[in-house]
Amino acid sequence: MCTSQHLSGLGLGTGKKARLYRILYQHGLRNGTALFLPYDQGLEHGPRDFFANPDAGDPRYILRLARQGTFNGIAIQIGLAEKFYWDFAGEVPLILKLNGKTDIPSDADALSPLHATVADAVRLGADAVGYTLYVGTPAQETDFTQYRRVRDDAQRFGMPLIVWAYPRGSAIEAKGGKDSFYAVDYAARVASELGADVVKVNFPHPEKRTAVKQQYDADFSSQQAIDAVVRSANRTLLLVSGGERAGDDAMLEKARQSMEAGATGLIFGRNVWQREYAESLRFAARLQEILTKYPRE
Amino acid sequence: MCTSQHLSGLGLGTGKKARLYRILYQHGLRNGTALFLPYDQGLEHGPRDFFANPDAGDPRYILRLARQGTFNGIAIQIGLAEKFYWDFAGEVPLILKLNGKTDIPSDADALSPLHATVADAVRLGADAVGYTLYVGTPAQETDFTQYRRVRDDAQRFGMPLIVWAYPRGSAIEAKGGKDSFYAVDYAARVASELGADVVKVNFPHPEKRTAVKQQYDADFSSQQAIDAVVRSANRTLLLVSGGERAGDDAMLEKARQSMEAGATGLIFGRNVWQREYAESLRFAARLQEILTKYPRE
Amino acid sequence: MCTSQHLSGLGLGTGKKARLYRILYQHGLRNGTALFLPYDQGLEHGPRDFFANPDAGDPRYILRLARQGTFNGIAIQIGLAEKFYWDFAGEVPLILKLNGKTDIPSDADALSPLHATVADAVRLGADAVGYTLYVGTPAQETDFTQYRRVRDDAQRFGMPLIVWAYPRGSAIEAKGGKDSFYAVDYAARVASELGADVVKVNFPHPEKRTAVKQQYDADFSSQQAIDAVVRSANRTLLLVSGGERAGDDAMLEKARQSMEAGATGLIFGRNVWQREYAESLRFAARLQEILTKYPRE
Amino acid sequence: MCTSQHLSGLGLGTGKKARLYRILYQHGLRNGTALFLPYDQGLEHGPRDFFANPDAGDPRYILRLARQGTFNGIAIQIGLAEKFYWDFAGEVPLILKLNGKTDIPSDADALSPLHATVADAVRLGADAVGYTLYVGTPAQETDFTQYRRVRDDAQRFGMPLIVWAYPRGSAIEAKGGKDSFYAVDYAARVASELGADVVKVNFPHPEKRTAVKQQYDADFSSQQAIDAVVRSANRTLLLVSGGERAGDDAMLEKARQSMEAGATGLIFGRNVWQREYAESLRFAARLQEILTKYPRE
Amino acid sequence: MCTSQHLSGLGLGTGKKARLYRILYQHGLRNGTALFLPYDQGLEHGPRDFFANPDAGDPRYILRLARQGTFNGIAIQIGLAEKFYWDFAGEVPLILKLNGKTDIPSDADALSPLHATVADAVRLGADAVGYTLYVGTPAQETDFTQYRRVRDDAQRFGMPLIVWAYPRGSAIEAKGGKDSFYAVDYAARVASELGADVVKVNFPHPEKRTAVKQQYDADFSSQQAIDAVVRSANRTLLLVSGGERAGDDAMLEKARQSMEAGATGLIFGRNVWQREYAESLRFAARLQEILTKYPRE
Repeated sequence: MCTSQHLSGLGLGTGKKARLYRILYQHGLRNGTALFLPYDQGLEHGPRDFFANPDAGDPRYILRLARQGTFNGIAIQIGLAEKFYWDFAGEVPLILKLNGKTDIPSDADALSPLHATVADAVRLGADAVGYTLYVGTPAQETDFTQYRRVRDDAQRFGMPLIVWAYPRGSAIEAKGGKDSFYAVDYAARVASELGADVVKVNFPHPEKRTAVKQQYDADFSSQQAIDAVVRSANRTLLLVSGGERAGDDAMLEKARQSMEAGATGLIFGRNVWQREYAESLRFAARLQEILTKYPRE
Repeated sequence: MCTSQHLSGLGLGTGKKARLYRILYQHGLRNGTALFLPYDQGLEHGPRDFFANPDAGDPRYILRLARQGTFNGIAIQIGLAEKFYWDFAGEVPLILKLNGKTDIPSDADALSPLHATVADAVRLGADAVGYTLYVGTPAQETDFTQYRRVRDDAQRFGMPLIVWAYPRGSAIEAKGGKDSFYAVDYAARVASELGADVVKVNFPHPEKRTAVKQQYDADFSSQQAIDAVVRSANRTLLLVSGGERAGDDAMLEKARQSMEAGATGLIFGRNVWQREYAESLRFAARLQEILTKYPRE
Repeated sequence: MCTSQHLSGLGLGTGKKARLYRILYQHGLRNGTALFLPYDQGLEHGPRDFFANPDAGDPRYILRLARQGTFNGIAIQIGLAEKFYWDFAGEVPLILKLNGKTDIPSDADALSPLHATVADAVRLGADAVGYTLYVGTPAQETDFTQYRRVRDDAQRFGMPLIVWAYPRGSAIEAKGGKDSFYAVDYAARVASELGADVVKVNFPHPEKRTAVKQQYDADFSSQQAIDAVVRSANRTLLLVSGGERAGDDAMLEKARQSMEAGATGLIFGRNVWQREYAESLRFAARLQEILTKYPRE
Repeated sequence: MCTSQHLSGLGLGTGKKARLYRILYQHGLRNGTALFLPYDQGLEHGPRDFFANPDAGDPRYILRLARQGTFNGIAIQIGLAEKFYWDFAGEVPLILKLNGKTDIPSDADALSPLHATVADAVRLGADAVGYTLYVGTPAQETDFTQYRRVRDDAQRFGMPLIVWAYPRGSAIEAKGGKDSFYAVDYAARVASELGADVVKVNFPHPEKRTAVKQQYDADFSSQQAIDAVVRSANRTLLLVSGGERAGDDAMLEKARQSMEAGATGLIFGRNVWQREYAESLRFAARLQEILTKYPRE
Repeated sequence: MCTSQHLSGLGLGTGKKARLYRILYQHGLRNGTALFLPYDQGLEHGPRDFFANPDAGDPRYILRLARQGTFNGIAIQIGLAEKFYWDFAGEVPLILKLNGKTDIPSDADALSPLHATVADAVRLGADAVGYTLYVGTPAQETDFTQYRRVRDDAQRFGMPLIVWAYPRGSAIEAKGGKDSFYAVDYAARVASELGADVVKVNFPHPEKRTAVKQQYDADFSSQQAIDAVVRSANRTLLLVSGGERAGDDAMLEKARQSMEAGATGLIFGRNVWQREYAESLRFAARLQEILTKYPRE
């Protein structure tokens, strides 16, 4: 009857467990997997991401999509949460994204500044907070410092912390790039070492081997790579992000391999809403078909 | 599709709306009504309340009952929440009771001291907090002072505030007693005036007229009385409490009249768990049968 | 009768709604549109801006103009607010500009430091605060950090927050410049994502296409551009700023297109007061004639 | 191999679990039971308690006794901890008693004021803190208020909280007295409801029935009474205190019944040290013989 | 009888003494020496360190190893401590590592940012905290500043402070490198001067003499070097770290010389767990054989 067996083994305090239970077992497929809708691209990339489907520029449209598509949560910035979440409060879990940046300046010293606090998330009834950590950035000192406060608040308030663990910055570019197996694997581990409850990573590319550390300079299949990444995250639940829109079959295969590896779920934005509404729902349903096969109980 | 129409008209901020939505539309009958299980009698009256059904002394037994009986929430003190809620985190909504007292000293100057904070409730993943306000007590200055801080924190954290509005103290005893129509009606209004999101009252007894204010010294049916009490509470949702165990038929009629009057739900403890487990579930089911007839959408 | 229908759909808390109601429905044309008088050029550009009409260097003169021209508000820095607003307190709404800078150093790493707080605005009876956010500046980390505190205070005090969303800095210069459609559209969205209640933008120039993101490298009319910008701002009310003095007819056409697109109003300074008093009033009246045609009810 | 099975089922956070593990499995019999040496009588009763064995007035003597007798911990006030514990730091666990009072004024409104904080306990390397709660005292408001801060700090620092749950005050005296089954049972439950990790109670006297609540006015054996008290404490570990010196056989029988009922251990002071050193050790050994038979694993 | 003679001569406050006593005399060989298991490589180097023995990527495996191998403590970051230590709480002492970094950006200005606080360590029941100080880094101002707060908190909470004293940064590289006798000796002294209770150093290499200060540009045996380093640390207990995996015999000789010099113990990670489980235990046992010969009493 109780479906939280899985959550009980993760070393979570009461509030984090309660909130993750809600997200994973009282929304979406209610089977311990998750399909999240990220919607912070308006800040990260600007409105250009909405040109493919102008309706998607309207936060209300996206929230309706999240509800109708029975997503497990929607990740948005404070401004949209303040002005749009009230209409849907409680119907779809809110993941308040706490930091973010524009892509206008260079990414060499990438850093994502805070715009909101865990206390804001509590006030708005959010069930989790999101933080972008740029693993390997030369600005890691500032990044880790502002992250520490977020982690501490999240612990104090019992709020699940989802880390967008993104390899980024000039040093990463010089060592295989941001989606090499080496970089993604390291990023997943960093999130786990630093106390993320959930980590969001890009799907690893084992074929990107130029200048990566020697251990990664070998033949790995993508299944082997994502298996290793899930292991590196250990008790930190893992989400695979969709990234830029790509072919549907490729995305579905990525999704399948991720779930096979033990991921908790998917966080797909542009691949979902950069198409017409009914099409978005259909694609979400296909992703959920995959999640159905991997209950986490 | 969206069932929160009702909540949208109550003047709630985002977090309170999200949390009440969870309680009222994602638990129990999911129709905007509520059946809560209060379990603070171990503190308020001592273990003697468990003699009728010794199993009920075990908080785990009660939490299991709340889950299996699909209650909309369970109201417990901080000690039990810290040690027992983890096992059920998220499965049944937690209402953290913030104050309480023993019944050993006299009730003449009744005051219920704080044992926990709204921040504790946030940390434990609670969906509401409970505060006992002794309306009319000679100690009302201290009571209101500590209440003010709770209300302020609840507002700041977006946490629904349920006020146990209990007429109490020597002055009340001299004016008709704690469950006269006069006293209950006044208590419901006080909760509403002071910012409760939900108020818990005893069922009013219009026949208790000795020394009540003149306006209440007339013939009112109990339906008229509870109608008036619900009106006095206005946008503050109203729960009727069961009180001491009494005959089932009387309780069910009380419940029916309350829902007819526009109450949001019931909060019945001893009447539920002072009997054997299967009997408790059966009685809860009969209460829910009534709630089914009064969806709040 | 109640004209705040429009405000009710914006996701505002009580205090912000009350103050915006005052600005939009109890001042100016009282029809939900706004004509603001910005007067922070003495800090931003220095007294050179007053050479065209030396009287305009006197804050008292400008406040009188704002009152007589029935502007919806005047935006000034703390120093002028402290010394001049008392005489007009309540007669014309005060928008306290919280940050600002000189134009003496280079704009490559543009950042506008704070000079005042939301608490100052409360103390002075202001109905809104203004913050200049340099979207895309390499100093975005510091900018976002000080902005976060302002947003948080504005939320806590129920004070409407108007963001001067200005693309600025070396990266913007390299990508089409500060008033390209791409830059203005992105800026409007950033303000909305980060919680501005009102955003002030420059009128977009779709013909500035050098090095802008691909989606903007196409033929757009200026009407199409401003339509898109208003949509990007979604529930954040949008003001179009006048910028440097230009031909009246061009300005009026800009104003008309903006209102047609759904903007809430205009914030014109130099175009208003860089001429003789009676002329200023006449020009303001012509702008208001346009606003009359676009009531927001 | 892992002996903490028992502790794992109590709903404890990491720090509290670590510290209780040390006390229960790395000291004394290392079998999950506990024998504590309380030594706060110098404050509570004055030096008169040392007349039977003047050596016992020397804290160093008592600490040596605690170490040589392999007690699981010693409970002392801040003054003795500051000046004497350094010599034995880590060798015998320290329970810092945070409040206390003299027995000079009347006990009618009994209240035990704070002398030290949980932060002091952390600084001194203590493994637990002790707090005397006078259950039923007319001063319960003040008592609960200062207790709340202690509980909150203990939670925040991961410090086990041992509550001396003592029925006391005029109302208790009027309802059967402080060691009636009714009073002790209620006290154990109050400690559990309010978040004690461990509760120290007097052995209940079911034969004291004058004016107790009706449910307790029946024939109970002392075994039945202590069984009920342990159940009332549920996940709060229970210690039985020795109280005034009494006959050894009576004490040992009390100890045996307590352990049989499921208590975690004993906290015996005067019965231990109000006799000559070697005799004290011998009596402690007899108590430990009993504890050996009730491993909690 | 009392084995803390050694600790009594170190000028420690009560809490630090109690906690070091636990580590040194109630765990491991219980003779005042220490064998620690460091496990922060997942953050410092990434998962590549686990390729030699993939099981070692699982924190639970490592904690089990620490317990079964009777290590005196395990050093981990906050994330692993939060999620994995509860299962082993109190069974093996926790050293919470407070700072750390990835090895992706350059080490020229090495700085290890804080991720956790001494208060976190208290809350988790840790017996010590670890801080990496990059002796000689150009970023030493920031390093010393954040270190100062840690030292201050450690003093206030009575928490032993273990400093990873690592010569690092461009200036060190230009003066003999990070494990020259010169650099290690200086690092040990810096830790002692700045208030470390325990210092962790690399084994000094007196043969690395290029560009070192003149006094170190002479023939020293490695025994002379480590003797000097222990003397430089004076009352700060000294641990020698294993570093990268090397030949077992070389490591054992290093260990022997260190203990001969007066070190308190060893902190060996990769040399222990980069091999199969039973092998790891066997190697740990060989290290403990050495420690047995150097009791510190």
